[in-house]
Amino acid sequence: MAARADGRAAELRLIGLEGIPEIEPGDALGEVIAGAIQRSGLRPAPGDVLVVTQKVVSKAEGRIVVLADVEPSGFAHAFAERWGKDPRQIEVVLRESTRIVRMDRGIIIAETHHGFICANAGVDASNVAPDTVCLLPVDPDQSAARLRQEIAGFFGIDPSTAPGVVISDTFGRPWRAGQVNVAIGVAGLAPVVDYRGQRDGAGYELHVTMLAVADELASAAELLTHKLAARPVVVVRGYEPAVAMAPGTGRDLVLGPERDLFR
Amino acid sequence: MAARADGRAAELRLIGLEGIPEIEPGDALGEVIAGAIQRSGLRPAPGDVLVVTQKVVSKAEGRIVVLADVEPSGFAHAFAERWGKDPRQIEVVLRESTRIVRMDRGIIIAETHHGFICANAGVDASNVAPDTVCLLPVDPDQSAARLRQEIAGFFGIDPSTAPGVVISDTFGRPWRAGQVNVAIGVAGLAPVVDYRGQRDGAGYELHVTMLAVADELASAAELLTHKLAARPVVVVRGYEPAVAMAPGTGRDLVLGPERDLFR
Repeated sequence: MAARADGRAAELRLIGLEGIPEIEPGDALGEVIAGAIQRSGLRPAPGDVLVVTQKVVSKAEGRIVVLADVEPSGFAHAFAERWGKDPRQIEVVLRESTRIVRMDRGIIIAETHHGFICANAGVDASNVAPDTVCLLPVDPDQSAARLRQEIAGFFGIDPSTAPGVVISDTFGRPWRAGQVNVAIGVAGLAPVVDYRGQRDGAGYELHVTMLAVADELASAAELLTHKLAARPVVVVRGYEPAVAMAPGTGRDLVLGPERDLFR
Repeated sequence: MAARADGRAAELRLIGLEGIPEIEPGDALGEVIAGAIQRSGLRPAPGDVLVVTQKVVSKAEGRIVVLADVEPSGFAHAFAERWGKDPRQIEVVLRESTRIVRMDRGIIIAETHHGFICANAGVDASNVAPDTVCLLPVDPDQSAARLRQEIAGFFGIDPSTAPGVVISDTFGRPWRAGQVNVAIGVAGLAPVVDYRGQRDGAGYELHVTMLAVADELASAAELLTHKLAARPVVVVRGYEPAVAMAPGTGRDLVLGPERDLFR
């Protein structure tokens, strides 16, 4: 069982950036993050991945809804009343949904226009001002690409070698307790690493292994960015994909019904 | 936005242990892992978590089936023939299942006796000798507790302050492409961190946030332990739960149908 060719132990470092201020609509988030990287004494290194929580991305992009401005439908009113919820918030959830997967006990599991299936279509009242809610970015892949470009610009790096960016959000899932962070936007890295055709240590040809590494990076970062930490960005250093793959997007992580055996 | 009380940046280190030999039935895996920790120049530190892939645990516990010894049922034969599979392997999958969730395109999504829902009931032909398959540990929580005890013994640490242990496996999931590693066995840490009742930075009381941190630790470690790496154990250093919680088990991550809105 060989050590790495360079003799070093394989190591991944996750560094939670401190000192990122409260983000306001219109803020140049990429520059804010780049500034925090610089203040922490780091400089982007090849292979770095930045995991950025959805909340700060949505705030920078102005994806905040003031509930006082929302006129709920009768349907929203009825569901909200039954479960003791705010009908305006239910209305926002319905507007962000293309399909309701389940609607029970005051919770709506919805498919968003991005194709994500998650609670309340990603609409969330935590870590925002009272009587407002936060929506998912319109196009999280574009958000990730923009952040990557801004960070490359700040440090004067060739954009093609700039750190990869993962935008993360907290999703529930069937069969298992609790939520985990997953990747909703990706730029500059392969979100899924495909092992098919590779041979393992025993010479066995792998047939089905495809690892959603962008989700794993998002989950790893959550251990530092968690909702109580006020630490929305993590630098992941030392990640090396098991198989070289072309970069992709967060949409590659959305599995259509025709390919989804678990659905 | 405060930095940590001690002024240091929050950092998580994941160290992939090198030099763990091929594991055979009956091996004292805890001692093998402890030896690898020692050879890497590390000593367990408070809060460390060891993530150990299921394959080495199963091998040490002799959970290997020689396919030549398996007599497939007619049902296994029919399904295998239709999809070009080995009927003996299908038979093993059926024996490891308590319920078939889906059976199509040669793949069986099954509920195991532990309550896990996963492809082929966790039966796997990768990284084992030809014409054998590997089963999940009978009781992965007990396996994790035993490893923890052996490692504490090796280093002469009080078992109650020994590193937490997560046994990980690679599971698919609905709606999202690719697989991720999750925790199937846990000892010495809280698998789910419950934020309910905590207030976020904006003073909002969190109502539903429960993070499956053991799954996130398993996913993080997969970035180093992946199937091509021959590196089955990762030391996670620097993890601090967001909320202090009592230790639990991997069974806490299994969500019954009555609580599962996503199912």
